[in-house]
Amino acid sequence: MSESIKYVLSENDIPSFWYNIVADLPQPPAPVLHPGTGNPITPDDLAPLFPMAVIQQEVSQEREIEIPEPVREVLRQWRPSPLYRARRLEQALDTPARIYYKYEGVSPAGSHKTNTAVAQAFYNKEEGVKRITTETGAGQWGSALALAGAFFDLEIEVYMVRVSFDQKPYRRAFMETFGAKCIPSPSEHTQSGRAILEKDPKSTGSLGIAISEAVEMAAQRDDTKYALGSVLNHVLLHQTVIGQEALIQFQMADDYPDTVIGCTGGGSNFAGIAFPFIGRKLRGEQDVDVVAVEPANCPTLTKGKYAYDFGDTAHLTPLVKMHTLGSTFVPPGFHAGGLRYHGMAPLVSQLSDLGIIKPRAYGQKSCFDAGIVFAKAEGIVPAPEANHAVRAVIDEALECKNAGTGKAILFNLCGHGHFDMQAYSDYFAGKLYDQDYDESEVAMALAGLPSVAAG
Amino acid sequence: MSESIKYVLSENDIPSFWYNIVADLPQPPAPVLHPGTGNPITPDDLAPLFPMAVIQQEVSQEREIEIPEPVREVLRQWRPSPLYRARRLEQALDTPARIYYKYEGVSPAGSHKTNTAVAQAFYNKEEGVKRITTETGAGQWGSALALAGAFFDLEIEVYMVRVSFDQKPYRRAFMETFGAKCIPSPSEHTQSGRAILEKDPKSTGSLGIAISEAVEMAAQRDDTKYALGSVLNHVLLHQTVIGQEALIQFQMADDYPDTVIGCTGGGSNFAGIAFPFIGRKLRGEQDVDVVAVEPANCPTLTKGKYAYDFGDTAHLTPLVKMHTLGSTFVPPGFHAGGLRYHGMAPLVSQLSDLGIIKPRAYGQKSCFDAGIVFAKAEGIVPAPEANHAVRAVIDEALECKNAGTGKAILFNLCGHGHFDMQAYSDYFAGKLYDQDYDESEVAMALAGLPSVAAG
Repeated sequence: MSESIKYVLSENDIPSFWYNIVADLPQPPAPVLHPGTGNPITPDDLAPLFPMAVIQQEVSQEREIEIPEPVREVLRQWRPSPLYRARRLEQALDTPARIYYKYEGVSPAGSHKTNTAVAQAFYNKEEGVKRITTETGAGQWGSALALAGAFFDLEIEVYMVRVSFDQKPYRRAFMETFGAKCIPSPSEHTQSGRAILEKDPKSTGSLGIAISEAVEMAAQRDDTKYALGSVLNHVLLHQTVIGQEALIQFQMADDYPDTVIGCTGGGSNFAGIAFPFIGRKLRGEQDVDVVAVEPANCPTLTKGKYAYDFGDTAHLTPLVKMHTLGSTFVPPGFHAGGLRYHGMAPLVSQLSDLGIIKPRAYGQKSCFDAGIVFAKAEGIVPAPEANHAVRAVIDEALECKNAGTGKAILFNLCGHGHFDMQAYSDYFAGKLYDQDYDESEVAMALAGLPSVAAG
Repeated sequence: MSESIKYVLSENDIPSFWYNIVADLPQPPAPVLHPGTGNPITPDDLAPLFPMAVIQQEVSQEREIEIPEPVREVLRQWRPSPLYRARRLEQALDTPARIYYKYEGVSPAGSHKTNTAVAQAFYNKEEGVKRITTETGAGQWGSALALAGAFFDLEIEVYMVRVSFDQKPYRRAFMETFGAKCIPSPSEHTQSGRAILEKDPKSTGSLGIAISEAVEMAAQRDDTKYALGSVLNHVLLHQTVIGQEALIQFQMADDYPDTVIGCTGGGSNFAGIAFPFIGRKLRGEQDVDVVAVEPANCPTLTKGKYAYDFGDTAHLTPLVKMHTLGSTFVPPGFHAGGLRYHGMAPLVSQLSDLGIIKPRAYGQKSCFDAGIVFAKAEGIVPAPEANHAVRAVIDEALECKNAGTGKAILFNLCGHGHFDMQAYSDYFAGKLYDQDYDESEVAMALAGLPSVAAG
């Protein structure tokens, strides 16, 4: 058999700890602020929403945080995920670049989201929580938490952005198969939802609104907490198993990435693949270029402001310092629902602000062009979110071809597109367009940033 | 970490040969007959439809047939597939049984079908074929051949049963992503299709009709051949990598199945998992019980006649001796489209006739009940076809519980249900029923068996 195309690890190679990049940052992250007082929030402020173990992780400065054995027990159902060498794609592009991808679609919920869903479900269960509420856009996060709920015997209630709920009935059925409840948002269940529906009974919802509803429900009952699928430090932390496994797999391949690429919505899959490599760079062990790819019509890192903002529309969340387009900005509809968020993970924002990672934005049409080249070569249909990473990879590989120099490129294929085929149908029917975002809307949303943002 | 839940092999453990059960049968298979003359067909008769290498495999009596290196090259993209120990399902059922499943959903097309699609595409390419036509019901076979076509740069034309084409637009998009053409059947492209549409312009199609269309198209052009996704000997042969890998994986687990279970539509996923174990039984090496599970409303093995019949509706195919409900019988609609075929693989039929395997039939409702228990425990949503196997596994495991005795049960989880979520939606909405087949229709179809059937 010729040279390897996939690097497979044994169950024992699942990392025993999560990597916390905070320990290696040149300066500590900006504190999370209480929206009322403008003071840094305390663990007690967050206790109604999150289990204490998760809150401790959110503010931890330890480099390594142990992964509990029951979490590893569940992760080994599909982890370690394979690292692929995309030899067929390299041939198709006729590039001297060596392209690698970590494939997180092997998770039974179809994406990287399961890595943190399992951890969060475990900590909630440990602390006696009976029910977790959350929001979901395209449905990958809701599916992952539904799965984790089945494994840890927790009730899961998912507020799904109305437009996605209607467009993707199969996501709902998928969550229900695992026993979760899926509610279109805005709903009549919450004050936040009712307030929106009163103004606009036909509201198609947004991620910001769905977060408000899930947070409100969690705050109401002692046996209920809330879980977020991206943005926060602990979520990014739980994803670092991806990059850590990749480090071992690159040893097997006797190679090391020159460039690491991930798509960024809230920032968690990007952090999962990139942080362990960035940590080595920050510690002076090995250099690497890191590219964060975002959608051109929700260009948080490339066009947003680095400032304090709310995570949700109803302003129920604390204030975090991040790249933001403004919490009231509603991005135009496009198919990568997982990238359609006004903000960006504070840690990813900080790295971008420091110039340690390079953001780049693409329109969805060119991302689907790339995704189809990838699918034909490698046999896997990527999720629309992942197509953004694929676009950047192909561009880098073609640059290598033009320059006549090879380099190793690693990217995170964060999920498959099995539940996103409507996007591909639209593409083939010539109905997939690039819709510009409205710059004046962003300007208005940014003008409305909370005053503490100046701090 | 506690005891293993998955047994993972390296690329080098992909079998180097396919296992041909014909070598171990107590008597040779009944010959395939020419429908006109009633005489055994010759390789030349089949040459317009299949490449010669495939025809040779169809009639081979060699026990081991080498897998060409370029085929193994492609298979290693996802093979060897994992063998799982379903510890969480065992706990949920509180059974002393040891339940194992081989998971073929890891294939990028989502099912075992890719194993033969890749082999058939390779042999066609080798013999200079430019285009392959085929039929598909639920879409798993069409997807697999589309993928293989992309890998070997072949045009793929898929005739998809009209009702599925309309109900499952995402399957079509999936095939198109790999560059295949997907045409609803009956179509205006063929004489067979036009004849059906003339009688019934709103015909929803059937697998038998789609086969007729694909065969007709292949026979018309020299650069075009036809590929079948199940039933024939060579297709079953290509699936034996599944059971062969499982044999190695059971050595790793230091166990051996007492019972092997697979669902049967055309018979290929069943053969893939079971034949290598049946071979060991036939050679007196190790005993095993084997259960073939079919849908109660298309009960080919349990209620059909073991006789010569056509494979298609328009009677363009040769005659094969198999369990059949009659080639003109149209099974009632149910969700496991892959099991909705009037016939059964001749080799599986023969084994059933000899009492070497035990057939069993279940209604779809109870199969979905089982599938949801499985999904909640193991995290994977099975294809509706695979739910039939799951139902039998759970029944066996509960019997073990009642009897207080453990045994090892192996089944083939032949595919995931990501493209079949409408069935799960219907289930949760209380709209999934068991519809009896019409016994008088079967009687009529059987009365119309070709006269040579007496032979």
